[in-house]
Amino acid sequence: MYTISDYLLDILKYLRVTDVVGVPGDYNLNFLDHLEQRTDLTWRGNLNELNAAYLADGYARKNGFSALVTTFGVGELSALNGLTGSQAERVPVLEIVGTPATTTQQTRQLVHHSLPHQDFSFSKQIHQNLGIITGQITVNNAITEINRVIQAMLQTKQPGYLQLPVNLANLQVNPVFKTRIPTLIAGSTKPETPPLTLLNDICQQLNTAQHPVLIIGSAVERFHLKNVVQKFITKHQLPFVDLNESKGVIDENIPQFIGTYTGNISNPVVQQFMQQADLYLALGPILSDVSTGGFTQTFANYNTILLTPQEINFLGEQRFPANPENFTATIKALCQSPNVCHQAGPTNPFQLTPLPSGQQQPLTEDFYRQALETFVQTGDTLVVEHGTSLFALENNRLPGDNCYICQSLWAAIGYTFPAALGASLANRQHRVILSIGEGSILLSLQELAFAIKNQLKPLIFILDNQGYTIERVIQGLTASYNDVPQLNYQTLLPAFGATAKTAQFFDVKTNAELISVLKKLQPANQPLTIVQLRLEKTDAPANLKKFSKLVKKNNQK
Amino acid sequence: MYTISDYLLDILKYLRVTDVVGVPGDYNLNFLDHLEQRTDLTWRGNLNELNAAYLADGYARKNGFSALVTTFGVGELSALNGLTGSQAERVPVLEIVGTPATTTQQTRQLVHHSLPHQDFSFSKQIHQNLGIITGQITVNNAITEINRVIQAMLQTKQPGYLQLPVNLANLQVNPVFKTRIPTLIAGSTKPETPPLTLLNDICQQLNTAQHPVLIIGSAVERFHLKNVVQKFITKHQLPFVDLNESKGVIDENIPQFIGTYTGNISNPVVQQFMQQADLYLALGPILSDVSTGGFTQTFANYNTILLTPQEINFLGEQRFPANPENFTATIKALCQSPNVCHQAGPTNPFQLTPLPSGQQQPLTEDFYRQALETFVQTGDTLVVEHGTSLFALENNRLPGDNCYICQSLWAAIGYTFPAALGASLANRQHRVILSIGEGSILLSLQELAFAIKNQLKPLIFILDNQGYTIERVIQGLTASYNDVPQLNYQTLLPAFGATAKTAQFFDVKTNAELISVLKKLQPANQPLTIVQLRLEKTDAPANLKKFSKLVKKNNQK
Ligand SMILES: Cc1ncc(C[n+]2csc(CCOP(=O)(O)OP(=O)(O)O)c2C)c(N)n1
Ligand SMILES: Cc1ncc(C[n+]2csc(CCOP(=O)(O)OP(=O)(O)O)c2C)c(N)n1
Repeated sequence: MYTISDYLLDILKYLRVTDVVGVPGDYNLNFLDHLEQRTDLTWRGNLNELNAAYLADGYARKNGFSALVTTFGVGELSALNGLTGSQAERVPVLEIVGTPATTTQQTRQLVHHSLPHQDFSFSKQIHQNLGIITGQITVNNAITEINRVIQAMLQTKQPGYLQLPVNLANLQVNPVFKTRIPTLIAGSTKPETPPLTLLNDICQQLNTAQHPVLIIGSAVERFHLKNVVQKFITKHQLPFVDLNESKGVIDENIPQFIGTYTGNISNPVVQQFMQQADLYLALGPILSDVSTGGFTQTFANYNTILLTPQEINFLGEQRFPANPENFTATIKALCQSPNVCHQAGPTNPFQLTPLPSGQQQPLTEDFYRQALETFVQTGDTLVVEHGTSLFALENNRLPGDNCYICQSLWAAIGYTFPAALGASLANRQHRVILSIGEGSILLSLQELAFAIKNQLKPLIFILDNQGYTIERVIQGLTASYNDVPQLNYQTLLPAFGATAKTAQFFDVKTNAELISVLKKLQPANQPLTIVQLRLEKTDAPANLKKFSKLVKKNNQK
Repeated sequence: MYTISDYLLDILKYLRVTDVVGVPGDYNLNFLDHLEQRTDLTWRGNLNELNAAYLADGYARKNGFSALVTTFGVGELSALNGLTGSQAERVPVLEIVGTPATTTQQTRQLVHHSLPHQDFSFSKQIHQNLGIITGQITVNNAITEINRVIQAMLQTKQPGYLQLPVNLANLQVNPVFKTRIPTLIAGSTKPETPPLTLLNDICQQLNTAQHPVLIIGSAVERFHLKNVVQKFITKHQLPFVDLNESKGVIDENIPQFIGTYTGNISNPVVQQFMQQADLYLALGPILSDVSTGGFTQTFANYNTILLTPQEINFLGEQRFPANPENFTATIKALCQSPNVCHQAGPTNPFQLTPLPSGQQQPLTEDFYRQALETFVQTGDTLVVEHGTSLFALENNRLPGDNCYICQSLWAAIGYTFPAALGASLANRQHRVILSIGEGSILLSLQELAFAIKNQLKPLIFILDNQGYTIERVIQGLTASYNDVPQLNYQTLLPAFGATAKTAQFFDVKTNAELISVLKKLQPANQPLTIVQLRLEKTDAPANLKKFSKLVKKNNQK
């Protein structure tokens, strides 16, 4: 018998999802029974739902799609901050929520995980409020509803939310729908013709500009435009910057790379280059305070062509309709247009700073940053937490072919540890390196048990600087609210089930120790590794110090 | 200078809140700076926001009120499942959310933790959707808005949600408002005259009934009606039952206590008594599937007088208006009414089962349950997780003067560990005993660091039965989705910062070992204690087995 659950699982499989994460609950067990029977898909139970949502987000950033299973009320609301992060940053995670049976809902029974008002629609409404694509499976709409949600997700690269009542998980459907999955998925990308005037206008501007510069945003990666944009850049030798939300989307190793731009707080060479430009072509950026150094970017409406899935702004003039199709169609057409004849000369190639010697000193975060720049290899996935890590590492050059994961806009701490595990799960061949503060890893720490159980092998640098250093720099330098409990990380590994074979631990106090540990870690096939980096309480990157002044000022208005 | 933050903190202090919990974020640091300066209130930072919300709920169940601080977007959405649990079960927790500055919001800047649509109202809307009392502080409404939220919370015993923009945390207000706090709090309980016809009708029914029985619900506790109801019961020798959501609200040690009623799955003696009754007077119960053994209660509309804060049902007839004031006023008037002349004889007093000997066998959950019945002392707080624990312990009699904490309706696992810490924090004199599955404790495990840092000393029984046993009994007896990673609990304590002085650990494999450990634990002033109970994978209470059949059946309709 072919059921709606099988159909849903077949779609996931077709989207290269091989691992489904989440937490069981009686309302989703009928669905999980179908998953349990598959040999081509594996259930990976998380320790809690928020962690599961973060993990699914990391998986989807790596794989293009992922799925998460939760239970009604308690599970889905626990996961909400994760799915909202996926919404904020366009990551197609499908949350399948097992809900009470249809009769239970219709007769408004006060079952566990429901609210005294006995109206079961509250959680779907919450997701709708957040602009998340939502669906609710009924006997009559099952196939259509799933198709609608999946297509909308693929079109917009947004997360989706699907309620599956427990009694409908075994609903029989015609197996013919399985054969139509390829058509369904193909049908979700309707390449439209780009708005032609816009295209001409852009070409013309680009051809007449003396010093155009491309600003690469994360949507270039989300909408799978990396290759076409990179070819365009190389062909016309166009200089480009990326942002901390989009590092490495275009190879940072090609000579057109100027650096990672974050307004006034960027590297002076990058700032100078950006100031001299006379045309900015911004492709899919999220221009938040964190990605623009507190809104200090030099480009402005009058000299910028902004193309994003939700806004087209041509030198200050809004153009319509702005939507994902026009975004991708315009970029593709532009990149392949025979009318672009701009040809810039080679630019200043990005310079790596050589690692300073004199390494017997106590470890500093800047030394760590520099050491990491040469340690990170082509193909590595780098996951960077929203603490001092984000600001330190945004100035490093990536060696190429890297997946760089951070939550630059939503910026929920605790996100990156599960996300790093999700990225590891999505591709066990790639090395995953996580840089995280000891404050942040605490939020989702129990997933260490998930990592060990599932033989994941991320390399985790824990920046142990005695508290929330990024916050100390903003406010409360010595305030007790910025302290966090001190853990014993070495003991943590066996506590969560690791053995000497499955995990290793290093405690690093000096620059020299870091270098020697990094040497040991060079060979492939390392087990799960935690490196505890002992840092000064207030050791923070210079760009963060500048940024924090802007944040603090903004917070007083 | 007296500020709005000081005012808010003074209100908390007046409501006997001495510890404020949560997680910092730059939008709430101005507020936390005020807290940091107080000597009469202490900030207790949690490891993540969901844990903080659970902890605040436990604190409020013990103290009558509590406060939680989060940051906009990421923090508050992480906490949402906790606050919704407080909403479902009427627990007055005030969440103070630090939001971006007013100018940032008005000019719709894309700052961290906001959504690309740049509308900052989404999170307030979500809380409103859930029926939570919400407020948003502005320059003009500050005092009024706080007063409105606090009064509504005290009137309804529901949680509240208050947005405080970061730039307004230092808003100066007139110190005269501080002196008016007692009036504000007093003004929140407006004792109305009870609906007189209703009162007469109830008295008449009670006087003519042969076998009336009182059903005590949690709202009796929430609305501080324990004493008046208990006096009423003793005066008229009225037999009563409580529910698993309201255990111990009325002393289970007085002869009128029949037992804890859970429909068909209750203890046969209790069922029999309930079947013979001819009038049921139900005071403030939440009649969910979990509290009624899957809706198998013997009482029905025609023979039940139901009084709750949101419904008055007199033998099948809805009476209006049903609201918190009429609920409390009616109960108070009834309990003190000279017109009740019912006088029942003494009832079957509840019998404790003597502890079986023959204890060299492997530990069983039923042995644990029985052993706990005599171990728990007057004054203890018992916190019971929604796994096999809830079903096992609901049949125990409490010795009296106990606070019994469980989430019978919302039933979010992971809730009780932080809640137990919250209860410990609210009253360091009382012993707090937690009974929790090893599946559930994983969800919020990192709060162990909070417990150790803050010298809390709960006694924690971890039912280590190799997975989600309650779910195995419902579905997936051997399914892998019901497995959880195996931790090493002994190592966990030092990993989270405990020393041999501050924490102890026991591993219990047989009934005899349990008895000997319980003996060791009898003297007061134990440090934080974890007792790992090794149980069979499918060892579940008989009442849970019955219940799970009903749940499974319900889930197929
Ligand atoms: C869920 C959530 N809660 C709170 C915050 C506020 N916040 C931002 S950064 C930060 C501290 C991070 O500290 P840590 O991880 O120790 O990194 P460090 O800056 O010390 O490297 C906090 C609490 C947040 N961003 N997300
Ligand atoms: C937040 C949340 N997620 C999932 C569930 C579904 N659920 C209910 S009970 C349970 C298992 C509890 O197992 P455990 O704590 O090990 O207790 P045991 O039954 O083994 O004593 C689960 C997963 C839930 N109630 N809440």
